[in-house]
Amino acid sequence: MRPSGRAPDQMRAITIEPHFTRHAEGSCLIGFGDTRVLVTASVEERVPPFLRGKGEGWVTAEYGMLPRATHTRGAREAAKGKQSGRTQEIQRLIGRSLRAVIDLKALGERQITLDCDVIQADGGTRTAAISGAWVALRLAVDGLGLAVDPIRAKVAAVSCGIWQDMAVLDLDYPEDSAADADANFVLTDQGRIVEAQATAEGATYDEEGLLRLLRLARIGCGEIFAAQDAAIARARTA
Amino acid sequence: MRPSGRAPDQMRAITIEPHFTRHAEGSCLIGFGDTRVLVTASVEERVPPFLRGKGEGWVTAEYGMLPRATHTRGAREAAKGKQSGRTQEIQRLIGRSLRAVIDLKALGERQITLDCDVIQADGGTRTAAISGAWVALRLAVDGLGLAVDPIRAKVAAVSCGIWQDMAVLDLDYPEDSAADADANFVLTDQGRIVEAQATAEGATYDEEGLLRLLRLARIGCGEIFAAQDAAIARARTA
Amino acid sequence: MRPSGRAPDQMRAITIEPHFTRHAEGSCLIGFGDTRVLVTASVEERVPPFLRGKGEGWVTAEYGMLPRATHTRGAREAAKGKQSGRTQEIQRLIGRSLRAVIDLKALGERQITLDCDVIQADGGTRTAAISGAWVALRLAVDGLGLAVDPIRAKVAAVSCGIWQDMAVLDLDYPEDSAADADANFVLTDQGRIVEAQATAEGATYDEEGLLRLLRLARIGCGEIFAAQDAAIARARTA
Amino acid sequence: MRPSGRAPDQMRAITIEPHFTRHAEGSCLIGFGDTRVLVTASVEERVPPFLRGKGEGWVTAEYGMLPRATHTRGAREAAKGKQSGRTQEIQRLIGRSLRAVIDLKALGERQITLDCDVIQADGGTRTAAISGAWVALRLAVDGLGLAVDPIRAKVAAVSCGIWQDMAVLDLDYPEDSAADADANFVLTDQGRIVEAQATAEGATYDEEGLLRLLRLARIGCGEIFAAQDAAIARARTA
Amino acid sequence: MRPSGRAPDQMRAITIEPHFTRHAEGSCLIGFGDTRVLVTASVEERVPPFLRGKGEGWVTAEYGMLPRATHTRGAREAAKGKQSGRTQEIQRLIGRSLRAVIDLKALGERQITLDCDVIQADGGTRTAAISGAWVALRLAVDGLGLAVDPIRAKVAAVSCGIWQDMAVLDLDYPEDSAADADANFVLTDQGRIVEAQATAEGATYDEEGLLRLLRLARIGCGEIFAAQDAAIARARTA
Amino acid sequence: MRPSGRAPDQMRAITIEPHFTRHAEGSCLIGFGDTRVLVTASVEERVPPFLRGKGEGWVTAEYGMLPRATHTRGAREAAKGKQSGRTQEIQRLIGRSLRAVIDLKALGERQITLDCDVIQADGGTRTAAISGAWVALRLAVDGLGLAVDPIRAKVAAVSCGIWQDMAVLDLDYPEDSAADADANFVLTDQGRIVEAQATAEGATYDEEGLLRLLRLARIGCGEIFAAQDAAIARARTA
Repeated sequence: MRPSGRAPDQMRAITIEPHFTRHAEGSCLIGFGDTRVLVTASVEERVPPFLRGKGEGWVTAEYGMLPRATHTRGAREAAKGKQSGRTQEIQRLIGRSLRAVIDLKALGERQITLDCDVIQADGGTRTAAISGAWVALRLAVDGLGLAVDPIRAKVAAVSCGIWQDMAVLDLDYPEDSAADADANFVLTDQGRIVEAQATAEGATYDEEGLLRLLRLARIGCGEIFAAQDAAIARARTA
Repeated sequence: MRPSGRAPDQMRAITIEPHFTRHAEGSCLIGFGDTRVLVTASVEERVPPFLRGKGEGWVTAEYGMLPRATHTRGAREAAKGKQSGRTQEIQRLIGRSLRAVIDLKALGERQITLDCDVIQADGGTRTAAISGAWVALRLAVDGLGLAVDPIRAKVAAVSCGIWQDMAVLDLDYPEDSAADADANFVLTDQGRIVEAQATAEGATYDEEGLLRLLRLARIGCGEIFAAQDAAIARARTA
Repeated sequence: MRPSGRAPDQMRAITIEPHFTRHAEGSCLIGFGDTRVLVTASVEERVPPFLRGKGEGWVTAEYGMLPRATHTRGAREAAKGKQSGRTQEIQRLIGRSLRAVIDLKALGERQITLDCDVIQADGGTRTAAISGAWVALRLAVDGLGLAVDPIRAKVAAVSCGIWQDMAVLDLDYPEDSAADADANFVLTDQGRIVEAQATAEGATYDEEGLLRLLRLARIGCGEIFAAQDAAIARARTA
Repeated sequence: MRPSGRAPDQMRAITIEPHFTRHAEGSCLIGFGDTRVLVTASVEERVPPFLRGKGEGWVTAEYGMLPRATHTRGAREAAKGKQSGRTQEIQRLIGRSLRAVIDLKALGERQITLDCDVIQADGGTRTAAISGAWVALRLAVDGLGLAVDPIRAKVAAVSCGIWQDMAVLDLDYPEDSAADADANFVLTDQGRIVEAQATAEGATYDEEGLLRLLRLARIGCGEIFAAQDAAIARARTA
Repeated sequence: MRPSGRAPDQMRAITIEPHFTRHAEGSCLIGFGDTRVLVTASVEERVPPFLRGKGEGWVTAEYGMLPRATHTRGAREAAKGKQSGRTQEIQRLIGRSLRAVIDLKALGERQITLDCDVIQADGGTRTAAISGAWVALRLAVDGLGLAVDPIRAKVAAVSCGIWQDMAVLDLDYPEDSAADADANFVLTDQGRIVEAQATAEGATYDEEGLLRLLRLARIGCGEIFAAQDAAIARARTA
Repeated sequence: MRPSGRAPDQMRAITIEPHFTRHAEGSCLIGFGDTRVLVTASVEERVPPFLRGKGEGWVTAEYGMLPRATHTRGAREAAKGKQSGRTQEIQRLIGRSLRAVIDLKALGERQITLDCDVIQADGGTRTAAISGAWVALRLAVDGLGLAVDPIRAKVAAVSCGIWQDMAVLDLDYPEDSAADADANFVLTDQGRIVEAQATAEGATYDEEGLLRLLRLARIGCGEIFAAQDAAIARARTA
């Protein structure tokens, strides 16, 4: 029995509030249960030095966690003077995931930065961030009024893991901290894999375990794609 | 005529949503118009080295701004590797303001950290932060169940300025960026001054100007005290 | 009775030694009693990026304290790898104060940096720095031989505070560390206010208290303006 | 046809030179073709603060690349003053991989640090580092003379990828920089998975693609396990 | 003919003003011509971790240069966030030089820090710093009232160089920036060498050149020892 | 009797393996006994800002030590976020030593960076680094195919010291840590001195001592020049 009483293949409630802030070209507050991440998409008419004059755009991401998003207060990274290895690993993953579904030539010579700030954490912050970043990116790209849509697919992410010998979907914090294996999958709505990361924490796993986790991820991402669609529809009719 | 159409002594709408996050001992989302600051109060059963073994507590604050809280995206301080002078100045002010109304001996040997993170900025972020920090502190102290209440007074803060030769209350961003003088007052509900800071931006000012700004601040803080009371009442009955 | 035996409205001895160093375009060693600050003004024929090509100059300041300027040795900021919040707050105040009395268009596209280094500290280092910076700036601008003088007024600064229920002028270290309220005023010789900052340390204060402090500051700044005049006169006839 | 002329499931030559340096408790120079990584294992009789007094040991890793290990010189991280996100990601992976096969209780209250420094890079530096780290760890643990061997399995890592629509094993730099998908697998000699990471670079992939990469990884790791065995045997008889 | 008109073996005027600041246990302002360095000696009743409980003291030094000590303004190291290689090299040399003449056991378990801050630079700042540091150290040790004097000798330092094929003593800035070879010698009043550093700048030199420079250094240090004696005598009788 | 059984004027075995790595324009692994330093020379067709457009090249060096090059593991400088004073002092010395024998005009507007990374340390790492850097530089310059050879001389470096009242050549770690005086000499094959640094550690020394150390250095450098010649000859015929 999962701590939350959920079935093994049951997601937490997914909530997406589009246009959560006024200044960003795109934004949303995404929730996977008690995990809440504010994502903003900022469009700038410039690209990083390595792309200048190539007629291509860039999509990148930054990730942060408010000091008291967690059960006990963590030190503020700005005060410590550096971002942790975990932060850097996550923001690199978010950027890669979004770039996998965008045609950078069609975007044109501009940069979109996705800032993902965790307001409240209860497991799965990186997967909520990726899923919300797609919504913010979609809204920001809508605003550009481009002739050809540079976004080629939807992208969503979800965590799964092996907890008490059971493959479970969308781990919350109590599960995450006790899981034997912990995986994150980033999938497109066409069923393709963008990123698969599966890590043994307490015990190694085998090929069958990996495939079971992937199948759970497909279920979870299906629900997230639906929530993304609904949020975009609401935002466009608002 | 003010850009927002407000009267010179008119505050923007004040909104305070208590217990905005789950993990912090106290929290609120405070809004002065479009300015929105998330404040959390974290209680830790330890004090900084200089206070160890003295039987006194400590109250301190940290301030941050999400990269896209502003009209154009600013660099993330955690990524730059240091906090700006402005950030440090503001967080020192918040901490001082709260310490002015708390009896640190009565608090006991524990530390309360007020994290003030600006979700959306439209002028007055530091004054909203101080005003919201008092609410978060109040809620956190309530939860300690102390025999003697260490909080001796309410504290609130508001900005005022001289804009187009007119003394105006609670500057929004368009006023703030064009003001000739810019002041922040931190006041107690007993009418005392905790901090007064008045800076000439485009033009110097005189004693009468200073007093007129102080009188506006009294009006604004009166409204904030009422909003704080209402928020605490709602939180206690919830 | 003040520790130094001074009357409540009595400044410490003000000493200003112009042209204290050889290389700087303007410099002085200013003393408020035992507090001694070396100020140099450096003229550079370039402006910060945000001003390039606008036909305007810039005036900025940096502040530092030698490790053993104080009663006990403090860590060297260069060795710690960062400037404290206090240092940044003070250098921002010095820069703002000087910019309030200079016509940046008339200065032309050049930058003047005021380096204020505390050789010995006994309270009031920031106000001595501002007062000395005006002298160094005056000497540096004299050397530019501009047709129109960009300096529109003199500026001086002094601290005052409430110490043992008495409003006193120009706090020395023993007073400063025991004051109930602590204020710094930056005034022009035309009687206008450039900056007012009054902070409750041990006890809050009221409007009348604020005004009494401001009146003391006018007395103190009057004496500083006279000392600035005398120093400039000596420098010009040397 | 692969640039190197290798068959799709063909590893590069694996070379392992044990005890490459004198001072470390364990060390080796491992080569996967032209990629060469020097790994040292340092035993220290202390553990990180979070483990003190728990009767458990710790295994951790650091990774670095000499500035001219690569085709063009990269900036020295010590001179830049920080480790890149890539470096941190890799060293976290190495540490996790080794901890998956060691019984930290049986190790006792001591720390083993695996320093993996890339002398020459031609793709696959992180997988060579993990594979070599196991050898250095084995040699260092041998030297401890523990009654119960804390190492529960061998661990090896290899990269695979989809290059020109072909699944290939052990990518060298020309393949790595042109691959559509890029994966790293960390496996035990009992056939279990410790870590699987598969990233779409130019094109997303599907479940069948993921499985084909995993099967290649099993082939590669089999060869690495044999090379590790041979190296350990040589070291023990030397 | 030297730019200053001095003879090859002629020092600049040596000035030493003892007790230049109030708070430090020992201090002086030392001048070699236009080079002026403020040195303070701070006594602290603690030693660095590596010496704790060994019954020995420690002497160390820090060096800094005010931003406008030089002809053109240099960036403030505290603002840049790190000390340059040159700064670290010099402060290591100063510390080593003083430790060479002090009996750390006789000093007892305390630390003396020599802060050497260059107020004005015209060549030879490190040698002036060492020579002044001895005076500050002497005064600070006098104040400890130890039964056995831990200072075993006087130490002084001077630069010499090969300038236009001529060996010259005590290089000023115009000579220093054009010298073919540049040396610094640290000598004791017993004629022993503490440190010799001779660097080819524009041209290499030979053994005879090295010896000629050493002979000049003996002349210069003789004059510095006399100036140190006179300064200490004045300080003791004051 | 020296710990290693060597005669006072006896060098350790000198080994130089040219072209140790593939990517660098020049490289070698140099050994002085158990001290082993990997040196690479990287040619870049750009110069530092202060040389742009002057038709001159630049030669610079960086130095590092792998964490476990030493008897006990040292912290990684990249992880600490800064290079130690010792590291900076050494890399400045290496750069200066090489620049003393190269005609920067003849080199043309390009930069050669010598990366010296200590693989294993047993005393004399800086002198091995300089001696090996000359070999790497020679190989890199050979590859440029310049009409006029910019290298004007060979350069080599060796340490000597006073150990148990005996002047000894090429100190290993046991001698280095117990020496009374410690010197490093950088010499050209024409017998000229590039740099002489002699430091009293436990006891001061006199002129005769300095000369005896210099004479030992001439013997040692003679052997190093022969080893450099042999290595270059092998590299050219390979």
